[in-house]
Amino acid sequence: MEEESGLWIEEMVLDRDIAVFEAGIKLGALYHQFIGTPVSTATAEELGTAIEKSVSLQPWVSSVEVEIDREKVRENENEFRYCELRGEMLDVNVVVLYEEVEVHARVRYEEDMGYPLMRVEKVLTK
Amino acid sequence: MEEESGLWIEEMVLDRDIAVFEAGIKLGALYHQFIGTPVSTATAEELGTAIEKSVSLQPWVSSVEVEIDREKVRENENEFRYCELRGEMLDVNVVVLYEEVEVHARVRYEEDMGYPLMRVEKVLTK
Amino acid sequence: MEEESGLWIEEMVLDRDIAVFEAGIKLGALYHQFIGTPVSTATAEELGTAIEKSVSLQPWVSSVEVEIDREKVRENENEFRYCELRGEMLDVNVVVLYEEVEVHARVRYEEDMGYPLMRVEKVLTK
Amino acid sequence: MEEESGLWIEEMVLDRDIAVFEAGIKLGALYHQFIGTPVSTATAEELGTAIEKSVSLQPWVSSVEVEIDREKVRENENEFRYCELRGEMLDVNVVVLYEEVEVHARVRYEEDMGYPLMRVEKVLTK
Repeated sequence: MEEESGLWIEEMVLDRDIAVFEAGIKLGALYHQFIGTPVSTATAEELGTAIEKSVSLQPWVSSVEVEIDREKVRENENEFRYCELRGEMLDVNVVVLYEEVEVHARVRYEEDMGYPLMRVEKVLTK
Repeated sequence: MEEESGLWIEEMVLDRDIAVFEAGIKLGALYHQFIGTPVSTATAEELGTAIEKSVSLQPWVSSVEVEIDREKVRENENEFRYCELRGEMLDVNVVVLYEEVEVHARVRYEEDMGYPLMRVEKVLTK
Repeated sequence: MEEESGLWIEEMVLDRDIAVFEAGIKLGALYHQFIGTPVSTATAEELGTAIEKSVSLQPWVSSVEVEIDREKVRENENEFRYCELRGEMLDVNVVVLYEEVEVHARVRYEEDMGYPLMRVEKVLTK
Repeated sequence: MEEESGLWIEEMVLDRDIAVFEAGIKLGALYHQFIGTPVSTATAEELGTAIEKSVSLQPWVSSVEVEIDREKVRENENEFRYCELRGEMLDVNVVVLYEEVEVHARVRYEEDMGYPLMRVEKVLTK
């Protein structure tokens, strides 16, 4: 396709590419693993910690912080006083370190866009 | 189909049916929610607790115990020293109480069958 | 606990219990497996069919119908014209046949309750 | 930490970073969304297509190919003739195009490593 047109140049895959790619994997994975989990204001913090521990195990993760918005959990609680974890309740920061590149990535619900935006916040190199 | 044959009789839905049905929901739900979660021998216990808390929130659950087999986790750990939670690592007991019926249900991997069997272990009534 | 009070009687586990339990498993499982899947009005029908095929494979399922509400999908579509599958978009009917008991179960979002209610709709025996 | 040492330099986030990051998100997401889904040799192709359709909806995906290894599905089928989708059955290629950067990424089980490796296979620029 495009490659055939001769206009595309194949680049070396850099450590930086791998660092950023790994950060994307972590956010995509945790989001689809944990969305739907039953949660309440009483269990939100503990669930957040369990997600952090789980993400921390994965390759090249140097830190992860998961915030579950208890106010939004409360608003969504049903008559049994729990709800499902949804994107709009999550704010996750992941730091990936691969060789000499550090990537800070985040997923947070953007009210005006109506969906959880995943983005690269910082790329640091030595 | 069968209904048309005139041989099938529609029964009242009993409290007992609801109790057993709810137990099935809990096992099906937790299995498909948490399978695939990154886990290690170091985080197995805490992940088990998080699953227990999550299941406990759901209607009519009176108790839940989650055992994650650390030996199997260890055997499956990759070079990064974690693996994905799989059915063969899980042993979960759930007790549901609905009106005057208590149901004990369990999911545990059956080695000889090669899959995680979910079953009703006890039905108690007053 | 209750068992110790001497007031609880342990019952035989009946085919009917197993039939109803299996119906619960199917609904709990499919819900937590597929919630969060990217979907659009264009792919809703095909995703519904894939879910049906997947549930049909499981033991004792004699039929399953999955409706994904395209109107609700449309309302939730973001700027990229898709959304995540959510409980409020689903209406699923499962029929389980175990020995001589047939159970019809359903999960559908109840607007006034604000959550997807799973229930036993019919129990038929010979 | 590292930032404080004065040795790390914050870089601009490039289109290339975003392209590679988005490719990572897609692989992480699909893996954790669909692992655990009941599948058989008869439904493997259709499930693969449903996953492709679902991934294709997401931002910047220009193509996706999902192969589910029917031989491995067959080997894992239980007495009911189905199994759960597992990492070792999957081979997925995703192409992301963001501005003038095209990224080819893949997840495939590496037998010798014992886990599904996600990697950037190509980065193309204009």
